[in-house]
Amino acid sequence: MQYVNDTFSHLDDQGRARMVDVSDKAETARTAHARARVRMAPRTLAMILDQAHPKGDVLAVARVAGIQAAKKTWDLIPLCHPLMLSGVKVSLEPEGDDALRIDAHCKLKGLTGVEMEALTAASVAALTVYDMCKAVDRAMVIEQVCLVEKTGGRSGDFRREEA
Amino acid sequence: MQYVNDTFSHLDDQGRARMVDVSDKAETARTAHARARVRMAPRTLAMILDQAHPKGDVLAVARVAGIQAAKKTWDLIPLCHPLMLSGVKVSLEPEGDDALRIDAHCKLKGLTGVEMEALTAASVAALTVYDMCKAVDRAMVIEQVCLVEKTGGRSGDFRREEA
Amino acid sequence: MQYVNDTFSHLDDQGRARMVDVSDKAETARTAHARARVRMAPRTLAMILDQAHPKGDVLAVARVAGIQAAKKTWDLIPLCHPLMLSGVKVSLEPEGDDALRIDAHCKLKGLTGVEMEALTAASVAALTVYDMCKAVDRAMVIEQVCLVEKTGGRSGDFRREEA
Amino acid sequence: MQYVNDTFSHLDDQGRARMVDVSDKAETARTAHARARVRMAPRTLAMILDQAHPKGDVLAVARVAGIQAAKKTWDLIPLCHPLMLSGVKVSLEPEGDDALRIDAHCKLKGLTGVEMEALTAASVAALTVYDMCKAVDRAMVIEQVCLVEKTGGRSGDFRREEA
Amino acid sequence: MQYVNDTFSHLDDQGRARMVDVSDKAETARTAHARARVRMAPRTLAMILDQAHPKGDVLAVARVAGIQAAKKTWDLIPLCHPLMLSGVKVSLEPEGDDALRIDAHCKLKGLTGVEMEALTAASVAALTVYDMCKAVDRAMVIEQVCLVEKTGGRSGDFRREEA
Amino acid sequence: MQYVNDTFSHLDDQGRARMVDVSDKAETARTAHARARVRMAPRTLAMILDQAHPKGDVLAVARVAGIQAAKKTWDLIPLCHPLMLSGVKVSLEPEGDDALRIDAHCKLKGLTGVEMEALTAASVAALTVYDMCKAVDRAMVIEQVCLVEKTGGRSGDFRREEA
Repeated sequence: MQYVNDTFSHLDDQGRARMVDVSDKAETARTAHARARVRMAPRTLAMILDQAHPKGDVLAVARVAGIQAAKKTWDLIPLCHPLMLSGVKVSLEPEGDDALRIDAHCKLKGLTGVEMEALTAASVAALTVYDMCKAVDRAMVIEQVCLVEKTGGRSGDFRREEA
Repeated sequence: MQYVNDTFSHLDDQGRARMVDVSDKAETARTAHARARVRMAPRTLAMILDQAHPKGDVLAVARVAGIQAAKKTWDLIPLCHPLMLSGVKVSLEPEGDDALRIDAHCKLKGLTGVEMEALTAASVAALTVYDMCKAVDRAMVIEQVCLVEKTGGRSGDFRREEA
Repeated sequence: MQYVNDTFSHLDDQGRARMVDVSDKAETARTAHARARVRMAPRTLAMILDQAHPKGDVLAVARVAGIQAAKKTWDLIPLCHPLMLSGVKVSLEPEGDDALRIDAHCKLKGLTGVEMEALTAASVAALTVYDMCKAVDRAMVIEQVCLVEKTGGRSGDFRREEA
Repeated sequence: MQYVNDTFSHLDDQGRARMVDVSDKAETARTAHARARVRMAPRTLAMILDQAHPKGDVLAVARVAGIQAAKKTWDLIPLCHPLMLSGVKVSLEPEGDDALRIDAHCKLKGLTGVEMEALTAASVAALTVYDMCKAVDRAMVIEQVCLVEKTGGRSGDFRREEA
Repeated sequence: MQYVNDTFSHLDDQGRARMVDVSDKAETARTAHARARVRMAPRTLAMILDQAHPKGDVLAVARVAGIQAAKKTWDLIPLCHPLMLSGVKVSLEPEGDDALRIDAHCKLKGLTGVEMEALTAASVAALTVYDMCKAVDRAMVIEQVCLVEKTGGRSGDFRREEA
Repeated sequence: MQYVNDTFSHLDDQGRARMVDVSDKAETARTAHARARVRMAPRTLAMILDQAHPKGDVLAVARVAGIQAAKKTWDLIPLCHPLMLSGVKVSLEPEGDDALRIDAHCKLKGLTGVEMEALTAASVAALTVYDMCKAVDRAMVIEQVCLVEKTGGRSGDFRREEA
């Protein structure tokens, strides 16, 4: 059961959007880990792994795109606070013969959580894989973008049962 | 069967990333329609629909975020070409009692397709829904970000069998 | 009387632009409240209020635009310092039968004031109202963009006599 | 009388925001001229003109800020189309002994008008003047941001009676 | 002899910055090739080539950074026109035992040249190399950022005698 | 001898790019000073100095471009951390009869150094000079972009022997 509270903190009591005031929150260490999967034809995955080995740039470009997107989350998600990420890591691993699993980890010492940064990094890395492979496989699907774990902050830790 | 060709056009013959030269492509009318689903607890969906009615901003904020993200796709996806979208539409509809379906439509008269713009709009609108509702439901999952249809361009039309 | 000092702090002693060094300033709580008015034909205002009720997005889009602009102030105003806003609120209310009043409130615990962030939020929200209504009323005027109040920082508090 | 039509083109028939489809509009030459005034204490204006002469950067910084903002209008105003401005000019002139008048001119050969680009350039140049002078005069007011003239496009020419 | 004309086209006749009006220029095919060198200790170059082989990301990250910077040139260089690059390629090759040579090629069918885009891509790729290697060699120098060749446009072709 | 350590901190042990975790670093005062030279025909330099005196905007535009680029370093250099610069200064001085020397100084109290910010400011100011003068002298070369000095942080101070 995930219900932390009953209100949308980004809305005021009349339902109007705001960037919620966090001035009084404590600065604490925070981490988030998000995941996405790109489901594709086995032949597409084989091509990626082949290109990635030894010198192809597919996975490196996706890693860079994910890291840069994490830093722009405040600009993409309208009510997110600007923050100064202290670390971002994006990794891509094959899963079975028809999927690439993307894990994004973000760290911060600050006033707000970094879940959105990790989710944005994973999503944009997945979109970048789609972009690089779409000429061979337009039917790829980005599946299961979700938060795996978060630590720190007033709302406490969260760990997804399965992912 | 989706294979259009056997090479990753974003890579040169040594596997190195480039923004592929489209100078010689013809300017044609292009459209793309992408979709994403946000799976959530029924109670979360009920709250969104409740807030959205009559004056809550949840869905409006997600629409705006999706539209703005479509315009920034060239900045988010490293090898995408800059382009001048001539129209973007993002809609969000409940699906069953535990999902929100997001449809993004993009249009362009230009040299390159707009699939990535539509997929980016749908993804960022979904992330924005997550952001606005995460205080009540951290276990939401963005499922099935995929291309539903595209028209125009040398590679021809594409329509997903089911979505 | 508003004169705080006799020099333009953004210029060095030869009149050359710089981003002034604030390394030695203390981190304090700061707030700013700015206001703008969009003067328009009564019929345009009636249409906005009509659209805004129950589901039209005019006011929600302007709120989001103002909040996002506040976060980009450092990128728009060349000599502004980057900072991490801890809260932003933009509200739009009808004033008489021919004006919309926009109030933007910004908060920060940091080294520099947030007046420019509040003024930028109010201005961009006003421009967004203009954009959404320009097809029906090109003669709208954005009037009286001004600082209503600020608190915190070395220069002390400020409150505009009337606004 | 300014009413061009009776609908907000940025909203669909249910009042939901969209970036309206302009695919079928003709590419025509378009211009826009917008104006803003910054009202200030006579002493502040004297200082600006003094600094501006011979080498102070106040007016140059405001010109650059206005030009750059014009290019970012699509990113600031959520439903504006991206476009490729072919020319931007921002000028600042004293008006009486207590105001600075800012005129922004934009040109484009394209599918959409450039009114918002000119209004954004004038507004951001005015905000930049405020920023540079706020240490000496916090009570400055940005007055009368308005469209002076536009040419080109389906809606025809517009010229403000007085400005 | 390189003098094409005697005036700075970005300034008006009073020396004030503007984005020069190119509305009347013809749309032609344009290319530019710029180059930069990063001079470093031989041991640093050996480490880069070592890391780059087989899977290290140093060169891929620099390529991506250069390509993305080319797309942002209009935002970095205040008086550059926005444009829609149709192709960008950035390559990095060792030169002797103590330098990395960076070549950036840009293409466009448009109203303005793409020299600044190629120079910006080469510069930012060089800065990215510096960033990735600075922990081992802070004394690296970016040397000789220059235009090698350009074609297209009213000012004709240019080819640097040596580079 | 500049070797501080033997590893590229931006890469993990498999050579994959990451934004390195600095959560545990101490917040210290940091400064960096970088330099670039733009070599040009003596006649071009004479024109710049002439235009710059008394009211031409060439040098002011380059100063503003450098300052703004410093603030965007995190967005340009993929593995740079976002940070909040507390001061930036860019100066341009003639050197001999055929060069303009650009010095950029950055300051921060934070977790990471500001060398990249200073180098980026100097590079973009140099590119802006190139842009403004390229119509009269396409053969200009940006030479010797290098770090002159840095202070603060775990790796200690650095001072270039000559520059």
